Amino acid sequence: MTTSARPIAAIILAAGKGTRMKSQRHKVLHPIAGRPMVEHLIEAVGELQPERMVVIVGDGRDQLETQLDGRAELALQEPQLGTGHAVQQAQSALAGFTGDVLILYGDVPFVRPETMRAMIERLHGENEPDVVVLGFEPKDGLQYGRVIAENGKIAKMVEFKDASDAEKACTLCNSGLMAVRGEALFDLLSKVDNANSQGEYYLVDIVNVANDEGRYCAVISTDNPDEVAGINSRAELAAAEARWQHTRRLQAMADGVTLTAPETVFFSWDTKLGRDVLVEPNVIFGPGVVVEDNVTIHAFSHLEGAHLAEGVEIGPYARLRPGSVLEEGAKVGNFVEMKKTTLGKGAKANHLTYLGDATVGAQANIGAGTITCNYDGYFKHKTRIGARAFIGSNSALIAPVNIGADAIVAAGSAVSRDVGEGELRLVRADQLVKPGWADRFHDAMKKKKAGGK
Amino acid sequence: MTTSARPIAAIILAAGKGTRMKSQRHKVLHPIAGRPMVEHLIEAVGELQPERMVVIVGDGRDQLETQLDGRAELALQEPQLGTGHAVQQAQSALAGFTGDVLILYGDVPFVRPETMRAMIERLHGENEPDVVVLGFEPKDGLQYGRVIAENGKIAKMVEFKDASDAEKACTLCNSGLMAVRGEALFDLLSKVDNANSQGEYYLVDIVNVANDEGRYCAVISTDNPDEVAGINSRAELAAAEARWQHTRRLQAMADGVTLTAPETVFFSWDTKLGRDVLVEPNVIFGPGVVVEDNVTIHAFSHLEGAHLAEGVEIGPYARLRPGSVLEEGAKVGNFVEMKKTTLGKGAKANHLTYLGDATVGAQANIGAGTITCNYDGYFKHKTRIGARAFIGSNSALIAPVNIGADAIVAAGSAVSRDVGEGELRLVRADQLVKPGWADRFHDAMKKKKAGGK
Amino acid sequence: MTTSARPIAAIILAAGKGTRMKSQRHKVLHPIAGRPMVEHLIEAVGELQPERMVVIVGDGRDQLETQLDGRAELALQEPQLGTGHAVQQAQSALAGFTGDVLILYGDVPFVRPETMRAMIERLHGENEPDVVVLGFEPKDGLQYGRVIAENGKIAKMVEFKDASDAEKACTLCNSGLMAVRGEALFDLLSKVDNANSQGEYYLVDIVNVANDEGRYCAVISTDNPDEVAGINSRAELAAAEARWQHTRRLQAMADGVTLTAPETVFFSWDTKLGRDVLVEPNVIFGPGVVVEDNVTIHAFSHLEGAHLAEGVEIGPYARLRPGSVLEEGAKVGNFVEMKKTTLGKGAKANHLTYLGDATVGAQANIGAGTITCNYDGYFKHKTRIGARAFIGSNSALIAPVNIGADAIVAAGSAVSRDVGEGELRLVRADQLVKPGWADRFHDAMKKKKAGGK
Repeated sequence: MTTSARPIAAIILAAGKGTRMKSQRHKVLHPIAGRPMVEHLIEAVGELQPERMVVIVGDGRDQLETQLDGRAELALQEPQLGTGHAVQQAQSALAGFTGDVLILYGDVPFVRPETMRAMIERLHGENEPDVVVLGFEPKDGLQYGRVIAENGKIAKMVEFKDASDAEKACTLCNSGLMAVRGEALFDLLSKVDNANSQGEYYLVDIVNVANDEGRYCAVISTDNPDEVAGINSRAELAAAEARWQHTRRLQAMADGVTLTAPETVFFSWDTKLGRDVLVEPNVIFGPGVVVEDNVTIHAFSHLEGAHLAEGVEIGPYARLRPGSVLEEGAKVGNFVEMKKTTLGKGAKANHLTYLGDATVGAQANIGAGTITCNYDGYFKHKTRIGARAFIGSNSALIAPVNIGADAIVAAGSAVSRDVGEGELRLVRADQLVKPGWADRFHDAMKKKKAGGK
Repeated sequence: MTTSARPIAAIILAAGKGTRMKSQRHKVLHPIAGRPMVEHLIEAVGELQPERMVVIVGDGRDQLETQLDGRAELALQEPQLGTGHAVQQAQSALAGFTGDVLILYGDVPFVRPETMRAMIERLHGENEPDVVVLGFEPKDGLQYGRVIAENGKIAKMVEFKDASDAEKACTLCNSGLMAVRGEALFDLLSKVDNANSQGEYYLVDIVNVANDEGRYCAVISTDNPDEVAGINSRAELAAAEARWQHTRRLQAMADGVTLTAPETVFFSWDTKLGRDVLVEPNVIFGPGVVVEDNVTIHAFSHLEGAHLAEGVEIGPYARLRPGSVLEEGAKVGNFVEMKKTTLGKGAKANHLTYLGDATVGAQANIGAGTITCNYDGYFKHKTRIGARAFIGSNSALIAPVNIGADAIVAAGSAVSRDVGEGELRLVRADQLVKPGWADRFHDAMKKKKAGGK
Repeated sequence: MTTSARPIAAIILAAGKGTRMKSQRHKVLHPIAGRPMVEHLIEAVGELQPERMVVIVGDGRDQLETQLDGRAELALQEPQLGTGHAVQQAQSALAGFTGDVLILYGDVPFVRPETMRAMIERLHGENEPDVVVLGFEPKDGLQYGRVIAENGKIAKMVEFKDASDAEKACTLCNSGLMAVRGEALFDLLSKVDNANSQGEYYLVDIVNVANDEGRYCAVISTDNPDEVAGINSRAELAAAEARWQHTRRLQAMADGVTLTAPETVFFSWDTKLGRDVLVEPNVIFGPGVVVEDNVTIHAFSHLEGAHLAEGVEIGPYARLRPGSVLEEGAKVGNFVEMKKTTLGKGAKANHLTYLGDATVGAQANIGAGTITCNYDGYFKHKTRIGARAFIGSNSALIAPVNIGADAIVAAGSAVSRDVGEGELRLVRADQLVKPGWADRFHDAMKKKKAGGK
């Protein structure tokens, strides 16, 4: 029997209050690598092409509804009476479903698809278990519940605090993740009681119920305990981010990217990088960045929604905002901001410039201190600069405005009317000269300053 | 008997030359988290409300005098004949003092108040010792002096080099910190000799003297050896800074702040942060920063003396200098510097701007490249911008100047006279057009460039 | 017999394909600390003043030829039949050479000169060996070839995969580096065969050949396994960079530099730093930087080819490009770029400025937003600013142009003609006032915006 022989449903628990986050934001919506953590999980489970996906929500369900936007069914758990009770809330959503059920956690977002697949496959392996628990061997040996098993057959699930010394010595712990035959799941859940100190219905108890009924419960173990790490605090969030970044940096280097100081470069979940890309220290990739081959990104650069074609060079201190397109060999220097702007082949904007809502032709040169005045307080307007145009330093281009090919705008000009091809535009007032004025000013001010003391 | 039953005096040793720092600055004045290290110690001991505080100084006492500015008595140790001799210099400053004496070190600045309190309390506990030594178990097991003790009663203090193998095997080490009954301290010190290879009077020897006299000497141990770590080199300074920052980052996250990459964020000793604050990588907090709830601080931002009200968003590359006040929902973007400036509710300064000595009204929009010309070479002048005013890009506001509410300054204007409410100010010269000029220029230059080769 | 008694030749193997780097760039030309890795090795071996240096090249030899530019002989290995075969290619280059031969690897660039010297000296020590192998004890205990030796006499070299368990238990591993008597080297190599699974001629086999002939082969061991770490991937490149930076930071601190957060500061191979220099977090030194005493470098600064005299203060966000000279007490603030520019004693450029191809006199003040317009699209031109001159904010200085001493340029001026000493230059158009215009504009736009929905 193969995985694909039966449909799969995923139940994602996301009803916890997340108190330790101390946040108005729903815990599973806190981002890692620029994406809400639950989205990482949804993408991973998506690789198994589940027929159904049910997210159990409690507090903050509006936020989840907005985020998921119909991509999963939501089931409300209210009040919240434990993990078993949470899973039970999926029952009506899964009415009529025949297949295998994966039980996942919105705050355990980095379970690998291959691990989920292995859990499902185990349901159809030897002894065809009704329940498969994902176990792990924690690095810290802390107070996790233990899976007491022999040859993969679970004898007993035991909470740490209830475990005997012999049971504590067993290092296989319960991750909480399970695969359960759909036919058995809600039947087992209905037999779980809440006779415990918290008065809660625990999901884990279905294993003991199943065992009591003579059903077969199996455990499989992940070799990477990090994938079942839960995120319950901002410190754990930061730790998960750090693990993600570490893995991504190694991948980038393996793919032929030089990271001078890998630990200072931060990628987004969707960053794409070519070969022989050089990324200097302290570079931050927001979402939507594509970098082609032989690009150099100097230190202190910040990129979002940008496409850098082959041979582009940016930074240090380049700030590329969404809609930045740098064509082959274009160059963006320090303290330059781009937004919704295309910089043509070999064009340059090297210093202290803001290019917004603009297109810049090939080989054009944007002088230091150039500002596209793209906003009038109400609407954004476009600036079009032709190929090989030369924009003199400290110019203001008051959009909407077109600068023709090969045109020159003299330094310090505020240009509010179109400039034709090959034309010079010079906006400059008279130079008033007042000989000796400065000397007299210096004398007066020094006197005033001395008097002021 | 309680701690408060007797007054406390603190003696802080700060006469060492600090040779390994290779610095003109006094060792204990090197800052950690933006504050001279000795100030951390003074704040901590301050929690015990000492009646007296004496700082023993040697080289660089002028620097200490300036720093402490009368908050502690200074006693000069000259020449410097050892730690025991150093403490002796406090004798006249403590004339008439009756109570308990804490002996601390200016270069061991992170001893916790609760540790100091425990030392004092031990003086009044079982057997009422005359001397209490603070011991610690070093992580590195290096060449520290050993405290040979049984059940907390010290049998002997022994230098590492003089220790037998059995004594070396004892892992309890001498931190150097002590609490001593004031009645006993100077009497004991007077009996310490300098018959050792260095010819110095060692403070530690008072324990052996006290033991010889049949007095009771006790040791208590800290569970955190970091708190007694001395700072003798810039590398140790950096390590202490790193420990401080690590602790502060964990605290921030526990309090509900998201740090995407905690290890890249540097706090000041007095940074205050609200809930659901997001701090992206590479942000530096100088002294005097207060951040309210729901603030976003993007990467590469640098803040000093700034107040950010609820919902403010700054950066990346925002540079807030002292006196920056951002009211609710205000926004500061990239390559923007603020100094002694208030940005009103919802006001924006998004790009390449310098705002100095200014007030900006609510909802005003400061265009890219705006500069407040606040300095004439001698005096600073103020710029006042009204609510909802729109300052066009690349404008220079020549202070003192007032821009009225709802006024518009056209892009590229240098404004030297007040602009009324609802008024448009347009400072712009004629646009000179020279058709074909640029084409001819390009031809001439290309020829010149070719000729130049 | 001393080292200098016989000439030394160095053979550097650099013919490997470097496949794992996934790069068009030759592996040994990837930089560490801003310098191609092979240059670090050449500098180190240079301390032994070798009479000959032969670099064995294969793929990418053009790149190496360009880099080395005649400083070493190149010998081509084509096809590439193993390390022994590689060394053989040096035979004709070393024709007539009588002395000792060091065999090094271009991708093992951090062998210390003292280690090389010890290898050579061992050739002339006890039993005058013909071959000296450099051994090391790896931290990771991985699959390195073993050196089976007793009292420094090699019995056998054995590949890990061929090693018996007893041999694997021997922790002394083969670094690949050797010193060989020139008289023996090529004779031994000629006797090496390629009867192995790869069909290659291995350099290491000369040891077994020599042993078979009754020659004496010795091993010496480095106490620092990092120095023989090979660089075969971008991750190993990053690790080598990190080790280099770590060592350099410790050295800087030992020399009296404060690094607030050492792990965020990146030095170049040739950075020079004075005493009581403060380097805040996130500072990057490119090549050619000299920093004198008492300089403060604030966060987020980026320096290349810059000289900072005593008491200079720069940053945060200062970007100094090659040819930046800051004289005593000069100050450069945020978002300021300098290139080929000298800033005189006590002169200041504090905000949002570009100074290119300029000289600025002592005590001059460059206002916020000042731009030197040094480029006309074809040629660079110079700007000269006199002592104590005051350049008003947002000015454009259109080079070539001279501003006299004590002169004042009014804010917002585009200056295209020289300004005399003590003169005021004011370039400013009429201020057009349109009362009520802004109010009418706001009304119209609000209407338009509402209509647009």
